[in-house]
Parts: sequence; C-alpha cells; structure tokens
Amino acid sequence: MNNTLSYISQNKDRFLNELFDLLRIPSVSTDENYKNDVISAAKAVKNSLEKAGVDKAEICETKGHPVVYAEKIIDPAKPTVVVYGHYDVQPADPVELWDTDPFEPVIKKTETHPEGAIYARGACDDKGQMFMHVKALEAMIQNDELPCNVKFMIEGEEEVGSPSLPEFLNANKEKLSGDVILISDTSMLSKENPSITTGLRGMSYVEVKVTGPNRDLHSGLYGGAVANPINILSRIIADLHDENNHITIPGFYNDVQDLPKEERDAMAAAPFDLEEYKKELGIKEVWGEKGYSTLERQSIRPTLDINGIWGGYTKPGAKTIIPSEAHAKISMRLVPNQSPEKITKLIGEHLNNIAPDYVTVDVNYLHGGTPYVSPIDMVEYEAASKAMEQTFNKTPIPLRSGGSIPIVALFEETLKMKSILLGFGLNSDAIHSPNENYGVWNFNRGIETIVHFYDQYSKLKK
Amino acid sequence: MNNTLSYISQNKDRFLNELFDLLRIPSVSTDENYKNDVISAAKAVKNSLEKAGVDKAEICETKGHPVVYAEKIIDPAKPTVVVYGHYDVQPADPVELWDTDPFEPVIKKTETHPEGAIYARGACDDKGQMFMHVKALEAMIQNDELPCNVKFMIEGEEEVGSPSLPEFLNANKEKLSGDVILISDTSMLSKENPSITTGLRGMSYVEVKVTGPNRDLHSGLYGGAVANPINILSRIIADLHDENNHITIPGFYNDVQDLPKEERDAMAAAPFDLEEYKKELGIKEVWGEKGYSTLERQSIRPTLDINGIWGGYTKPGAKTIIPSEAHAKISMRLVPNQSPEKITKLIGEHLNNIAPDYVTVDVNYLHGGTPYVSPIDMVEYEAASKAMEQTFNKTPIPLRSGGSIPIVALFEETLKMKSILLGFGLNSDAIHSPNENYGVWNFNRGIETIVHFYDQYSKLKK
Repeated sequence: MNNTLSYISQNKDRFLNELFDLLRIPSVSTDENYKNDVISAAKAVKNSLEKAGVDKAEICETKGHPVVYAEKIIDPAKPTVVVYGHYDVQPADPVELWDTDPFEPVIKKTETHPEGAIYARGACDDKGQMFMHVKALEAMIQNDELPCNVKFMIEGEEEVGSPSLPEFLNANKEKLSGDVILISDTSMLSKENPSITTGLRGMSYVEVKVTGPNRDLHSGLYGGAVANPINILSRIIADLHDENNHITIPGFYNDVQDLPKEERDAMAAAPFDLEEYKKELGIKEVWGEKGYSTLERQSIRPTLDINGIWGGYTKPGAKTIIPSEAHAKISMRLVPNQSPEKITKLIGEHLNNIAPDYVTVDVNYLHGGTPYVSPIDMVEYEAASKAMEQTFNKTPIPLRSGGSIPIVALFEETLKMKSILLGFGLNSDAIHSPNENYGVWNFNRGIETIVHFYDQYSKLKK
Repeated sequence: MNNTLSYISQNKDRFLNELFDLLRIPSVSTDENYKNDVISAAKAVKNSLEKAGVDKAEICETKGHPVVYAEKIIDPAKPTVVVYGHYDVQPADPVELWDTDPFEPVIKKTETHPEGAIYARGACDDKGQMFMHVKALEAMIQNDELPCNVKFMIEGEEEVGSPSLPEFLNANKEKLSGDVILISDTSMLSKENPSITTGLRGMSYVEVKVTGPNRDLHSGLYGGAVANPINILSRIIADLHDENNHITIPGFYNDVQDLPKEERDAMAAAPFDLEEYKKELGIKEVWGEKGYSTLERQSIRPTLDINGIWGGYTKPGAKTIIPSEAHAKISMRLVPNQSPEKITKLIGEHLNNIAPDYVTVDVNYLHGGTPYVSPIDMVEYEAASKAMEQTFNKTPIPLRSGGSIPIVALFEETLKMKSILLGFGLNSDAIHSPNENYGVWNFNRGIETIVHFYDQYSKLKK
C-alpha cells in the first residue's frame, strides 16, 4: 500500500478542494426548497466515483431522493466491502449563529485542530467522512493496490430517516451483496484516544399538536377561564420525565436491555473529563437519568428530547392572546431491544390518555430507526481495529454511541451483513449545529485508515 | 338631539365608508415595520376630527407613536368630556387564518349580525369604537346640538401598553383637564343584554429566555446527558400553576381584594350560558381556578397565560437537536389592589429561584398596567346608564371585564378623572384574533348612545 499512501499525501490539497465543491451544494434533504441541490449533490458524488476509477456508477431513483451506487469488482472470488454514506445534510438553521456561510467552506485553525478544520454544513456529517472513502478508493485503484471488491451505496435521505432505502435494499439484494458494510458517520473519543463505535441508538420521532379554542383568544377577556394550549403542552412535556428524569411513558423501559457490569465498567474506564465536557458546552451542571453516568446517559440509555416547540405570538413585542394551537417535535433515542414502532405507539397512546378534556392532542409520526450493536469478536472488527492502530499507534476503544443511523439495523436484516462504524469525527465537530467543522488531520488520517482496513481485511478474511 | 339623530341615520353609509378608509391603514404599533402606517393613521384621525368641526386638532409627538389631540369648547362654564381611544391595532398574525384580508374591510352577514358585521383588524378594537365618537361629535356640531365641551385624546400605543402616555399626561394636565373620561374600548354582555364595564384587570407582561448549552447540540450524541432548555422551560411553565390552577408564585395573591358576596351574587345573576360559551369556542370543557365561576375567572381573578413560546427547530420535517435556547412570552392579568411592578418583581425572583443549575433564566419586562374599578354611584355612570337605556330600552348591567386598559388607572392618578367604559363590542368580535369583526348594528347604536350620553350628562351634571 506504499504507493497508495504516498499518492494520498501528494494529492491531499486536491482532495480538500474537491470536498469543498461538494460542501458548496446545500443538499438539505428535509426541506423541499433544496430538492434540486440534493440532486446536484448526488450527481457530484457519482462523478467523483467515476473519476476514482470504478467499473460503473449510477444514480438510482427512489420515491424520495436518489441513491448513488458504484462498484469496482477486481475478482468475484475476493471479499466485497460495501461502503455506505450519505450526501444529504441537516438544515443550517439557525443560520445567524454561523460565523461563516454554512455552504461556503473555509479552513480555520483551532485549539483542537492546529492543522486547521473545515467549517461547513456537512463538513463531517457526512460529506467529509463519506468523501474519505471516495479518495481512498481512488488512491488504491490509481496505484493498482485495491486488494478486494468494493461497492458504494451513498444515499440522500439519512437526515430524514432514510424513508426510501428499505425498498431500495429489498429491490437490490443481489447488486448490494457483499461481506461487510463499512460506514464512516460516527466520531472517536479524541485524537489521542481512537475509538470504534460498536452500538447505535434507535429513534422514534413524533410531532405533537395541542388544540384548545377554535381561534386565538384575547388573553384578557378569556384568560383564566379557557385552557391555554401552551400551558397544557408544557405540562404534558414536563410530565414525560419524573423527578429522577426517568421517562414516564408506561412500558417505555420494558424491552430495554441492561448492559452487563463488565461493559459498564469498561465504559467507566474510558478516558472522559466531566469538567472539560461541561466547560466545552458552557454549562454549570449536567442533567440526566438518576443512577447512570454521563457517558452512559448519552449512549446506552433511552432518552426523550423536545427538538422544537412553537405556539402563539413569537415575534418582537407583546401580543396578548391565548393561542388556538401549540406544537412540539419530540424525539426519543432507543437502545438495543426497543422497537421504534412499539415506542411510537406507546407515546401516542400515552399522550392521548393524559390529554385533559379541554384540549385535543394529535400525535403525528415523522420517522424512526432500530438500535444496533456490533460484536467485537468478528474478523471485520479486528481488521478495523488493526487499521486504526496502524494510523494512530494505539488500540482503539470499542464504544457505544448515542447517535442513530437507523439504516444500520436494516442492513443486517435485509442484506444479512454486519456494519463496521469506522468514524473519525470528534464531539467538538458540532454536527447538526451552527459552525459544524471537521479536522483536516482527521480527514487525512481517515483516508489512510480506510486504506489500511482494506489491506488488513483482505489478509484476515479467508 | 333630534336633528343630530336623523343626521346620523341619513349619513350612516358615509360613516362606514370613512371607517373603512381608516381600517385600511395597518397601524400595528408593536412592529417597527409599520411605523409609517401608524403615522398615517394618526393623520387620518386628525383629519376626521377637523371635518367633524372641532376648534383645533393636532398631532402631538411623543417618544413613541404620536397622540392625536382635538377640542371643541362651546362654553368654559359647561362640563367637559374627555374622549380617549386608540388608533393602533394588534398584529394580524396568524394572517393565514383570516378569511379575508385583515386590512381590506368587508361587510358580511352572520347569525349574530343579520345586518352585517365589518371584518378587519381594528374593526372593533379600537378604530371602530373610537370612530363612533368622531361621528357622534360631527353630528352634534353640524346640527348645533353639542351640549358641553369635548376633548379628544387618541393614542397610538395602547396595544403595546401606552409607554409614552404617562409623560404626555403629566406634560399636558391643563390641556387635558375635564370632568370625566369617556372610553369605548370594551364590550357588552350581548345585543339583548347591554352592560357597562365597571372594572378592568391590570397586567404584567414579561419575556423569559432559558439558556442551556452554548450551541445547539446533536440530540443523539448529547441526548439524556445535557438539560434540554425546552424541557426545562416546559417544567417551569407547568409549575406556575398547582393542581387547583392557582398560580404558585410566592406572594402573587397577597394584595388581591376578594369581591364582596353581594357583587359575586350579582355576577352569578348575570345572563350567561356556559354551554353556549363552550360551543362558540369549540371546547369540550372550560378550565380555571378552583372555586370560581367562568365569569369570575375571566374578570375578578388574576391569571397567568403563555402568549407565545418558541425554541429549537420549528420548520417542516425532523431535525434532531437539543436547542441552546427556549423562549416564552408570559402575561399576568391583575385585579384591583395588585401592583404590576410588584408582580413583575415577584415572577422575576421566582423564576430565578426555581431555575435549576443546568440552565440560566433571563426575565425581561415588556409592559404592564394597574387594575381599575369605577363606582356605579356617580353621576357620570348614571348618565351612561340612562343613555344606554334610551338606545336599548333596557337598563345596562354593571360588569367587571377581564381585559386591561392600563391607562385608565393612570388617568385617575394623573388627571384626577374617573373613566366611563361605554363599550359596544361583543365577545364574538374576535378582537386580537383572526377575523376580528364589529357589528354594523353595534356601530350605529354606539353613535346614538354616545349622543344620548352627552345629552344626559349635561342635564345631570350641575
């Protein structure tokens, strides 16, 4: 792999410029207004794969945004790695909190990234990490050092729960057949402490509407005598957690698998500085479920968060009304053995049960995903671990992540393949937030590690 | 007054058309974008008063929106009535819920108004009701039947709490001197049951900001481990009422005067159909403070309502964040003896006391007003009562209103004059709401009643 590795270091500036072109496309999948940009991003990914030297690359239409598929088959007898990633991004809102244009990438040096970090929506999640795979493949093909077959499946609906992918997978099982799925859409503990994500939380995402009177009312003439939907929604939200911050939806925890003591001890041993964590977030105190550590709360325990709330008059100044409606977006992160369908049903029933007579409550399901755990005793994990060790000179720590990549569980179910979550992001990357960024160092180490993975995997997989 | 009354019926169509011109001006005082429209409305009012035949009319600048002043002095020895009203209006939001353009008035027949109702923002509150006074004055002057002196004080900041009026009153005590203040900015029980408002609630209006982490966070990576400002704000709001819907702010009720049993019995005797009330609002059940009737809850008891709430992602689709901030607008209606300054201080202290360590809470005062009660044994009330009886052939019921006209208490304090709240609106007018409207019948009866008031008052006031 030496030629490949020197090719990578010789071309790293060009790699960055090509990534910048991709980041300039505002491919926001949740917002219809960006539909054309999403298409442009798909085409850009297809072109980059063709330039890398694949046998064929194509844009596969779906009911929603298209999937980009590509393959390089060097020998049907050799193992096949299926790379998954996504070219869509989260909305940039609130745009006013960005220091630079979210869709005009810039490189800035920071304390964490003295070599500079790329600032743009999607810099890390997932255009930056996905593009590492394109460039690693290009380097191996151009230097004739690709040791196995590779397939790419890059979708455009990950940030909205991959609604079209299940049908795509079912319709293309043959085409997508392989030995393992390789995904870079997660983060490491730190630059000094490489880690590999061995678990993902699932999700149930609903939107709630509380309706009171049939119109906005004058809060003077009716105040005190008519239920205010905002007050009622606030009460409903407040009551979803008890005094120990346990979620109060009946049956919510029924299927939760408690982590064995050994694994909890391993997590407790992982390097984590709570003071540093609080300082970085600018908070005086952490919050969470009684009886669990911060690392556990954000990875192995289910959660319920309000992602958005609105109702009544929200512009400058004072308007004295009791609004007719109040709304909230509620997402629950799920852990292994919890079913999104079941949890969505439970919250819907619960909210309707506790809704008082003076309002009506509507619960609308937006999307969900099943949790996932990947075993660390399989050869694919061993290859990933060795590859990271080659790059970072340190054995990576296996860690559960609190994030959700709903599709990973579906890969196993439909394609009968395990996934390796080989991510190179950091918590400080601010993904989904203003000023999302990705270290140039992480981008380059990622490309190298991916090359090592192919090398190790081809040797280990007999 | 016969010539005056026939002049009114002969010119009623012209009166409506002139009101329409005024309603077409979007004089939204709370929104800087409408600044020029507010000025245009002030000029339109001044012109209408000049056309009515006043001795002089002027636009008086203030730190905020101007006050329109006009006077007609027929004999300094005779009593002087000071008419107060406002030419500013509430925002039209949510505009999408209006059936017609809020600033293009139309007349539609309804069940309540077979003669038709005027649909427009400000149709009732307060352009429509204020304009009745302009037309009543015109009719009396044109027919030489004005029996006393009249002064007009029409402001442009009532909907934002009249911030500039106190200074204006103090600077113009001489100019504004008179015997009574006459205001039409309230409603009657029904067309069949005329009533006069004898009390108004005060107000304290604050905006609350809850801040958690220093940026929006990925709800997967941080969910469960970091306090979500929306969840916390919801909890804070929920805890502001106890299980009996009493407000929990310590000291909130300390100064509340309980109404004497006789007055509560009188209220209970007032015609009120709870089923009709619920049907008209489209609610299954009413809500409110335990131990009080609906009429009492919305008039003689203090309240706390959330007028607006916002935080996180509120656009279509799913965004998985823990927002950095959550906001709410909170208004409290106050009853006689409660002080807005004191209540504002209490809620500010309370919210900071209950704010948990993992967030910061900022409380920002927007505006307030002192409650008011007007005695029914004064000659001014007698004149108003007789005037209504002449128009409606029924003695009006004295009633406390839940609304606030903060300035009324200040009139008494600064100008040493009582106010007569001679309003002709109905609950179904939907003021502050989409599809605000005002009955043509009410508009015409109002003009006649105002004329009778001048007549009665001049006879009674010796």
